[in-house]
Amino acid sequence: MPRPNVKEQLIQAGLKTLLKRGFNGVGVQEITEQAGVPKGSFYNHFESKEALGAEIVERYGMNSTRRAVLLDKTVPPLERLRTHFDALNETFVKSKFERGCLLGNFSAELANQSAVIRESLAKLFERWTKDLEVAIEDAQADGAVSSDRKASDIAAFLLDAYEGAVLRARVQRRRAPFDRFMTLAFEKILT
Amino acid sequence: MPRPNVKEQLIQAGLKTLLKRGFNGVGVQEITEQAGVPKGSFYNHFESKEALGAEIVERYGMNSTRRAVLLDKTVPPLERLRTHFDALNETFVKSKFERGCLLGNFSAELANQSAVIRESLAKLFERWTKDLEVAIEDAQADGAVSSDRKASDIAAFLLDAYEGAVLRARVQRRRAPFDRFMTLAFEKILT
Repeated sequence: MPRPNVKEQLIQAGLKTLLKRGFNGVGVQEITEQAGVPKGSFYNHFESKEALGAEIVERYGMNSTRRAVLLDKTVPPLERLRTHFDALNETFVKSKFERGCLLGNFSAELANQSAVIRESLAKLFERWTKDLEVAIEDAQADGAVSSDRKASDIAAFLLDAYEGAVLRARVQRRRAPFDRFMTLAFEKILT
Repeated sequence: MPRPNVKEQLIQAGLKTLLKRGFNGVGVQEITEQAGVPKGSFYNHFESKEALGAEIVERYGMNSTRRAVLLDKTVPPLERLRTHFDALNETFVKSKFERGCLLGNFSAELANQSAVIRESLAKLFERWTKDLEVAIEDAQADGAVSSDRKASDIAAFLLDAYEGAVLRARVQRRRAPFDRFMTLAFEKILT
C-alpha cells in the first residue's frame, strides 16, 4: 500500500486532534507530531493552521457515505433519514463523546475568529441541509411528511436540532439527547 | 457608585472576551487588560483560567431576567416561551452575531478539555431545560401543547434546536435560523 503523502497525513492528523480538542486547543507542532512528519513540513503544504482548518471543513463535508444514504431513492425517505442520524449517533457514542461534530465545534469556536473557516462552515451547513432536503422532499412527495412547510426549512430546522443534541450529549456524556432527537424529530417534525 | 471589585471586573471582562473569541482564543493577560486590572491580580482571585471559566458558566446560568419570564404564571405559557426566545434572538442580532451563546460555545470547545467546566455546563443545560419545562407544563395543562410527551423531553429538545440555530446564525451572520426556529418550533414542537 503506498504511504499516504504528507499533506494527506496532516489533514487526517488535524481532523483527529481538532475534533477532540478544538482549533485553538491544538498547535501546529501537535498536529505534525500526530501525523508523524517533521514540523517544518507543515508550511510546505499549508500557509497557516487556519488554511488547514478550512481544508478540513471542505473534506468533512465531502463524506460520501453519509450523503449516499440520504440520496438513495431505492430506500423509503424516512428510513434514509433514520439510518443517516443513527450512524452519526453511533460514531459519537463509540468515541465515548470525546469527538464532537466538526461543523458544530468549529461554528462555536471560530465563527467570529476566521472569515475563511466561517465561509467553509456556511457552505457545509448548506450542503448538509440540501442532502436532508432531498430525503424530506421525497417524504413529502409520498405523503409521509406534511407539505405545509418547505422541505428546505424543515431540513435546516432538523439539522440545527441535531447539532444541539450533539452539544448536549458531549457535555452530559450520555446518549439520551440522541435518543430524544430520534424520537421527537420523527414524531414532531418529520410528520 | 462604588467601583466594582477586581474579581467582579475579571468575571465581566472574561464573559465579554470569551463569548466572542472562545476559551482557548483568549489569554489571562487579555482578560486582565480588558478588565483594566494588573495581570498579577488575576491569580489572587482565580486559581486558573479554567476556574474563571467555571465561575462564568455559573453566573451565566443565574440570569434572573431570563428565568423570570419563563416562570411568570400571570402570562400565557406560549407567550412566555416566545418572549424568552425573542429576547435572546435580539441579543445575538444586536451583537451582529459576534457573541455566541456561552452554553453552546463552551460545550463545543471544552466538553472534552475541562471536567470542571463540563460539569458546570451540564448543570446549566439542566437548569435552563427545567425553566422551559415549567412553561411547557403550564401549556400542557391549559391544552395549548399536547401531553403525549413529557414536558421535560419537549423542553430539552426545544433547547437543543435553539442551540443549533444559534450556531448556524453565527456562521451565516443572518437571523434566518432564528426566524425559522420561531416558526417551526411553535408550529411543530409546541403544539
